[in-house]
This record gives sequence, structure tokens and C-alpha cells, in this order.
Amino acid sequence: MVLGQPPTPGRAVIVGTGLIGGSIGMRLRREGWYVTGRDRDPARAQRALELGALDAVGDDPDATITFVATPVRAVAEEARKALAAGPGLVTDVGGVKASIVDAVDDPRFVGGHPMAGSEQDGVDGATPDLFQGATWVLTPTDGTDAEAYAQVRQIVGTLGAETVALPPDRHDELVAVVSHVPHLTAATLMRLADARSVEHRALLRLAAGGFRDMTRVASGHPGIWPDICNDNRAAIVEVLDQLIEALRDMREVVAAGDRDALLAALEQARAARVNLPARFRTAADLSEVRVPVPDRPGAVADVAILAADLDVNIVDLEIAHSTEGPQGVLVMLIETGAAEEFRRALVGRGYRPAVQPVEG
Amino acid sequence: MVLGQPPTPGRAVIVGTGLIGGSIGMRLRREGWYVTGRDRDPARAQRALELGALDAVGDDPDATITFVATPVRAVAEEARKALAAGPGLVTDVGGVKASIVDAVDDPRFVGGHPMAGSEQDGVDGATPDLFQGATWVLTPTDGTDAEAYAQVRQIVGTLGAETVALPPDRHDELVAVVSHVPHLTAATLMRLADARSVEHRALLRLAAGGFRDMTRVASGHPGIWPDICNDNRAAIVEVLDQLIEALRDMREVVAAGDRDALLAALEQARAARVNLPARFRTAADLSEVRVPVPDRPGAVADVAILAADLDVNIVDLEIAHSTEGPQGVLVMLIETGAAEEFRRALVGRGYRPAVQPVEG
Repeated sequence: MVLGQPPTPGRAVIVGTGLIGGSIGMRLRREGWYVTGRDRDPARAQRALELGALDAVGDDPDATITFVATPVRAVAEEARKALAAGPGLVTDVGGVKASIVDAVDDPRFVGGHPMAGSEQDGVDGATPDLFQGATWVLTPTDGTDAEAYAQVRQIVGTLGAETVALPPDRHDELVAVVSHVPHLTAATLMRLADARSVEHRALLRLAAGGFRDMTRVASGHPGIWPDICNDNRAAIVEVLDQLIEALRDMREVVAAGDRDALLAALEQARAARVNLPARFRTAADLSEVRVPVPDRPGAVADVAILAADLDVNIVDLEIAHSTEGPQGVLVMLIETGAAEEFRRALVGRGYRPAVQPVEG
Repeated sequence: MVLGQPPTPGRAVIVGTGLIGGSIGMRLRREGWYVTGRDRDPARAQRALELGALDAVGDDPDATITFVATPVRAVAEEARKALAAGPGLVTDVGGVKASIVDAVDDPRFVGGHPMAGSEQDGVDGATPDLFQGATWVLTPTDGTDAEAYAQVRQIVGTLGAETVALPPDRHDELVAVVSHVPHLTAATLMRLADARSVEHRALLRLAAGGFRDMTRVASGHPGIWPDICNDNRAAIVEVLDQLIEALRDMREVVAAGDRDALLAALEQARAARVNLPARFRTAADLSEVRVPVPDRPGAVADVAILAADLDVNIVDLEIAHSTEGPQGVLVMLIETGAAEEFRRALVGRGYRPAVQPVEG
């Protein structure tokens, strides 16, 4: 943290102590937090306690924050329970967001989705470093309290992750492209190979690193997928249609022996893959952007999502409260290289930002 | 090597000193071989020399073996040149086999394809351990000299790889499933995401480990693919059609919200992925299988391919020559657990195998 103080360790509740919940608990405890938690399966909560993911099994009405890390179908109900149980913040880690955020709809709830995981599911695969350098999507809305958003963002930073803010439905569209459909495709490639291996027992001996890489995600437990495919059905079906269409084009290129078209397609894919953004790096050269935000619902969500649209990495974000009335100032640290574009975009949306370099 | 002596280091020529050719040179030199080589691009041969992949740039008419490691389109011509230049063995590493093996057709030529590679192409990515534990397909035919096959097999073992014998056209069908179509699919997924990222700049920030794994192969140089897609067109088009059909089924399952069908498909994929054979392990418990092979063309290819069909790992293979006439004995080491099935299959094809355990 460059701005202000590091977030004070607080008290957290983890609902659902699997891989993700357990990893959150382990990391928060390492950072000095007091963490309690529970699971629908008491043995799993007990195991999380044994592994050091929890200080105690149970609830905590004084929690600063509750992480709902259950399967998608249980998230909304657990989030509402947590909101009713105490005055703290509530967030979740579900792989789809629109259905959950619509169902919860509370100023203290901020939907979330860490883009990290492991084929080894369950708390035995948990590690405090699971989120280090990972992207963690938060989905603030017009109804999200600005301070709640800023705090959840800080806590996510404590876990080692970098936040990208997106509207819930946009999150769902994008993860269909980079997660849901690739997963279904990996499983489909694996099944095709498996079917052929009945006839040709040598087949799977020929599976080299490339095939192993491509199908690795298919080795994860399928239990989470029916919910995800249900809640994100429209986007997944749309992207599957696009993939089928694109593969049909590829088939025509191969069938026609069109070398130039094939090379062009593969060159384009190569350039895109090579340019895939690395995990966020800590920028050396930062600027502070101060944006007065009027007492308008959704201003923080609006600014944070605008930054994501421009691929501006917000290194830190705080709300500085004004002593005169409801107005606050959103104080962000961003890379200096992106500052001017961000400033102009903010002005274009009616904000009055002030930008200044940060002394090194 | 358990059987006989370790292969005597000899002299090798590498034609095409890229990633694969360079890695072969480095490993053979480490094993005491004298290695010369050349490349269409003299600077690349020079670089291979600098990196220790060659003892000298140039040809060697006294070579024990020539590895043709050029792009697919140049293999047949280079292989024929090498066969004409001296009495040694010739093999290649091309990603398709039927077109090459048909075009060369010589008792001293054994088609090959190491199932190993790297996204870092060029000799700068070469390493003597590239093939350690990898599967290396050899494609003997009725016209292949038995001794030539046995020797190429031993040399491939020297490189750290394990041989699987397949007929050339079967190799091509199978690599379409585990390599060619997965590669085209990875490129297609990457292009879909790239196209969407124009509209949503945050998209690629959401690409987590699974997506990165799935698209990694797309970062390789596309130069080899037009030849591969041309020479293996029929198999690739067939497998692409199967993939498109399977994805259409998956789309229907998602669109219909059919949880059970989705779970069943993903469970099947998971089981197959989890059971993907590990790299060959050295078996503790071996049996020797001795098969008298009459002076019949293709008997060695026939036996080796039969072993691959049964997924029997031939740990070692030698030809013991009879002093009385053209008959020889094929001596193989295999895992004891597979010995009885292999013996029965051999009998079923008219061979008269003798099996006995090897003293530990």
C-alpha cells in the first residue's frame, strides 16, 4: 500500500471452507486477522481449522467482512444471512456474478471473483499464496456503498491480488470467453481423445506437453459447472456458437489447403498470446488522481469500471471524506503513463479530476 | 539398457539445426557421439556449433545415422540425399509421417516423430534433455530393415526417449487428435478472446492459469503448420468435424440446462485426464520375450506395432542373429504384467514366442 496506512487486520468469516475459502483464511491469518468459518460439511470446517485456515469454527457477528465461498447456488442466501447477522461487509467468490449481485442487492455487498484456482480442489489444496499476483474481479453497482467498495478492494489487496472492477453482466460475458468455454472445450478435446483411445491404445502415449497443458483444467472436479452453466447460460451458448463458427472457418481453410489464410490466423493468435498481459507489475512511476465524487450513487463503481475499460491499473484507491457535507474525494494511484488518458476520460464523464505525480 | 551392451557412440549428421535438431546434437555429443550438421541457413548451423550442438558444420559420409530435422516439406528430399551419400541409417522428426515414408521408401530409412517440443523454437531453445522421458514414435513398414529399426530404436533410447511403433498413417490419425487439432483449437480460442478484447480491454486481465495453459501452444511459430495441415489434411478435417459436432452437443446440453448430461460429460473427461498415462516409468519387474522372426519383410514392424496396439512398453529390443541362415530372433524386454497378453497376441499372429522372467 502506498496510500494511507496498510489496512488494519480485522475479523473475517469464511463461509465455505474449500480451496478458495481456505486459501483466503490462511492468507488473512498470516496478515494478522482473526478468522472464523463454517462449512455445510462440518468435517470440512474441522479440516480447515487443522490446516490453519481458521482460528475457530463458527460465526462472528463482529466480523469486518464475510467471504461467501460456497458453490454458486448457495451464495445469495448465505450473503443475505451474513448481512443480517452483523454490520460488516460481505463479498463472495462465485464464478458468475449477475445472478448473485441481482439477488443480494445491498450497499454492503460487493460481488467478487478471484481469477485463480487449482485442479486440486478442497481445503487440502489451499495455500496463502493462491491469489498472489492474480486478478480479482469486483462488481460494484450503483447501489454499492463507496466506502464498502474501497474497503473490500483493500482487503483483496491484502490477499495479494489486484482488482479489476466490472459490471456484473460484463464479468459474466468475459469469463465465458476466457474461462467457461475454454473449460468446456478442454473437456471436449479430452473426451474425443479418450473415445479414440479405445480403438488405438497407443493414442494417449502420444499426448505430449501441449495436449496435457490444454486439457489440464478438465481434471478438476465438475461439481461447480452445472451452476455456472445455468447462471451464465446465455453468454456461454453465445461464445460456444462463436467458437463453433470459428472452428468451421478453420476447417474450411485446412480443407482448401489455403496456406496464407492458415498462416495469417496462426500469426494473429501467436501475437495475441505473446502479448497476453503479464500479471500486474508494481509500477515504478505512479501518479495520484483525485476525483471529487458527489453524493451520487454508483460514482465509485463508475470510476473503477471506467479504469478497467481503459485497462488502467488502479494500484491503490481510497475515499477521503470531506468535512463539509456528503462529498468525498476518491484518491487513486495509477501508472503515470496512463494518467492523461484516464484524466481525459474522467473529464468526458463529467468528473473534475486532479492529477499529480507521486514523489518516488 | 538392460539387454546387451549400451549402444556404441557413433557419428551422426543433423540436417536442420533448429530446436529439435539442436537438441538431438547436444544429447548425442553428451553421450560421446561425433556430430556434424548443416542447415539451409548457414548462420543457424554456425549458432548450433557455438551452442555445442555440433562438433563441426558439414556432412559426414561415414555417419552411423542422419537425423533429418528440417520442416516437413524438405524431409523426403534430404532423406534421399542422405541415403545416397553413405551407407548409414536415416531417420526424421517430421510431424506427419505417411507422406514422408511413402516418398522415401528405403530399408535404411525409419520415419520418426518425437512427441516433445517447446514454444521457444530455434536452436537457442535446444537442450540435451528435451526428449527425456518423452514418447518418440517410429514408423517401421514392411520395407524397413529389421536391424535398421532396432538400431534407430536404440539411438532414440540414447536420447532419453521411449519408442512407440506405429504405421505411418495411424501415426497421422492419432496426432491429429492429440496435437494438430488441439493446436488449431488453442489458436482459435486465443483469437476469439483477442477479438473480444478490442471491445473490452479488461478481458485479457481475466485470463487466469487455465486459459494460459490452454493457449500456450499458440505462442509457437506458425511456420511448420501449413505443411502439416497440407500433408495431414484428411485426418485433421475429420477430427475438426468431430470436435465441432461434440461442441454442438455440448452447446445443446448447456442451452437445455441439462445438469446430468453436463456432469456426466465432465466426469468422463476428468476420469480420462486423471488417467492420462504418465511418462514411461522404468519397470521393476521385466520379462524377456524371444520371438524367432523368419526372413519375412516387416516382421519387426509387425511385432513392434502389435506391442503399441496392446500398450505394451518395449523397454529394450534387439535382433539376435542366427548362425544358420536368414532367421533371426527378436529379443525384447517388457513388463512382466503385460507378458502373457503379449505372448498370446503373438501366438495369434503366427509367431512362436518364448517368455521368461529376467533375474533382477
